Amino acid sequence: MINRLIENIKKTEAPIVVGLDPMIDYVPSYILNKAVKEQGETLEAAGEAIWEYNKGIIDAVYELIPAVKPQIAMYEQFGIPGLVAFKKTVDYCKEKGLVVIGDVKRGDIGSTSAAYANGHLGGVQIGGRKCYGFNEDFITVNPYLGTDGVKPFVDVCKEEKKGIFVLVKTSNPSSGEFQDREIDGKPLYEIVGEHVANWGEDCMGDSYSYVGAVVGATYPEMGKVLRKIMPKTYILVPGYGAQGGAAKDLKPYFNEDGLGAIVNSSRGIICAYKQDAYAHLGEEGYAEASRQAVLDMKKDISSIF
Amino acid sequence: MINRLIENIKKTEAPIVVGLDPMIDYVPSYILNKAVKEQGETLEAAGEAIWEYNKGIIDAVYELIPAVKPQIAMYEQFGIPGLVAFKKTVDYCKEKGLVVIGDVKRGDIGSTSAAYANGHLGGVQIGGRKCYGFNEDFITVNPYLGTDGVKPFVDVCKEEKKGIFVLVKTSNPSSGEFQDREIDGKPLYEIVGEHVANWGEDCMGDSYSYVGAVVGATYPEMGKVLRKIMPKTYILVPGYGAQGGAAKDLKPYFNEDGLGAIVNSSRGIICAYKQDAYAHLGEEGYAEASRQAVLDMKKDISSIF
Repeated sequence: MINRLIENIKKTEAPIVVGLDPMIDYVPSYILNKAVKEQGETLEAAGEAIWEYNKGIIDAVYELIPAVKPQIAMYEQFGIPGLVAFKKTVDYCKEKGLVVIGDVKRGDIGSTSAAYANGHLGGVQIGGRKCYGFNEDFITVNPYLGTDGVKPFVDVCKEEKKGIFVLVKTSNPSSGEFQDREIDGKPLYEIVGEHVANWGEDCMGDSYSYVGAVVGATYPEMGKVLRKIMPKTYILVPGYGAQGGAAKDLKPYFNEDGLGAIVNSSRGIICAYKQDAYAHLGEEGYAEASRQAVLDMKKDISSIF
Repeated sequence: MINRLIENIKKTEAPIVVGLDPMIDYVPSYILNKAVKEQGETLEAAGEAIWEYNKGIIDAVYELIPAVKPQIAMYEQFGIPGLVAFKKTVDYCKEKGLVVIGDVKRGDIGSTSAAYANGHLGGVQIGGRKCYGFNEDFITVNPYLGTDGVKPFVDVCKEEKKGIFVLVKTSNPSSGEFQDREIDGKPLYEIVGEHVANWGEDCMGDSYSYVGAVVGATYPEMGKVLRKIMPKTYILVPGYGAQGGAAKDLKPYFNEDGLGAIVNSSRGIICAYKQDAYAHLGEEGYAEASRQAVLDMKKDISSIF
């Protein structure tokens, strides 16, 4: 799957990923109203509305980008109907040829991580059949529990030729509280980064590992160090745009081959119609606004090479 | 909710929680076969089977225990139908008067943690109505992202009078890989423990905080230290039984009031019918075996006071 992600990046000339993280107040009112009219003020209506909203965006941008990253929390907040919308979104994006990175940040003790890995990347055996739960291409993983909490994900990646991105240095303001603390003269995120490189060593695609890392765009100095510590690791970079990360800061996340990183934007793309620059397209033009925002992001990102 | 948890513990005289973590091979074959006969070898059949299996156990044990802890991964592995079974289990346990601890180990950047908090503890506003997704009483939370990743959970706890248990020192073998690393002469888990005590300070129940901690039974020396660092923090203790933690090691997790900790057992209870001690009850007696195992666990745990 890491090979296919890289292929898609080369084909679209865009090391970017669109975060499909729908909040109810991002959804244009005509879409939400229609769903509420049909299903009342219910979770079902919310699920239907975010799915319709997503579909419009996907149709408008899929040819321009290599991958999407739905954040499962934004679906999980609507309970089962929200997760039905998540699953529909995953399936639809895959149909459209996009690589799907489920931003789920799961991680637990070994046997439990194995269940998450099976639910999101692999399958479960039911009688004589292997059945797939969510079946994303990649997911994000939390490393706090250590190797035996991460290993089951790596095992399923090998088996299914899928991938993970492990949290190393997150984009949020207080990420340093634990991640930056010094241990034997090194910050924790470097130590986690070393583990990530190590976990990925024996499951390599053509040039990069199945095991990637998450490093926030908001900490470019750390990105530079981590790039060196994890030379064969693809880096998923959140925090560009709405969270404050700028294109000029992103160069250190890439390798000299122009690969090695993929930059996420969520709000900046999916909620573009609410920005001054695209407001002229109106609410009904939300998908076109997303398309324009993707084109603008591609231009911005390409300026760093 | 922390007050109600403590009330339930006092009423049942049992500082224990049953982990409802169904694996497909725990489910008695007559239950699985019936579901497969009706719905084929599908995720739907698996979801129906684990719900039937859970219901039998809940009916057999609910009067003996204060709380249950369904591990969401074990449901998520079966996709949407698995999560439907999770939701049914949560609702049914609440109907039976049990406190429900959703073992979800979520945690993300602020806005995303807020969505998880709303999905699991609070609700979402859809038009004029507040709708509830999963609506557990407590959930577990991963602290790797720091204060702004945990704070949204605390905020919802205050609003809804619910609770969280934050991972401090987990029960798995490699938990020490990051959690035990020394920072300014102190292991990371102690620093996280200090934060947990701090996060919980301004949301107190009568005697304990809404913000609890997870500390594995498998590390009693660390439990002792953490008990002192977090005197008003309820400690959820996984790792008893199947993972190797013994009753004699659990005393340090409790305060002198006999409160302050609740010990989880999952496999040891729900899969009791496969143990030699209860095998005479047979597969059809799996619920009665769980009941016997709860009674035995209560006796074992009470021996430490």
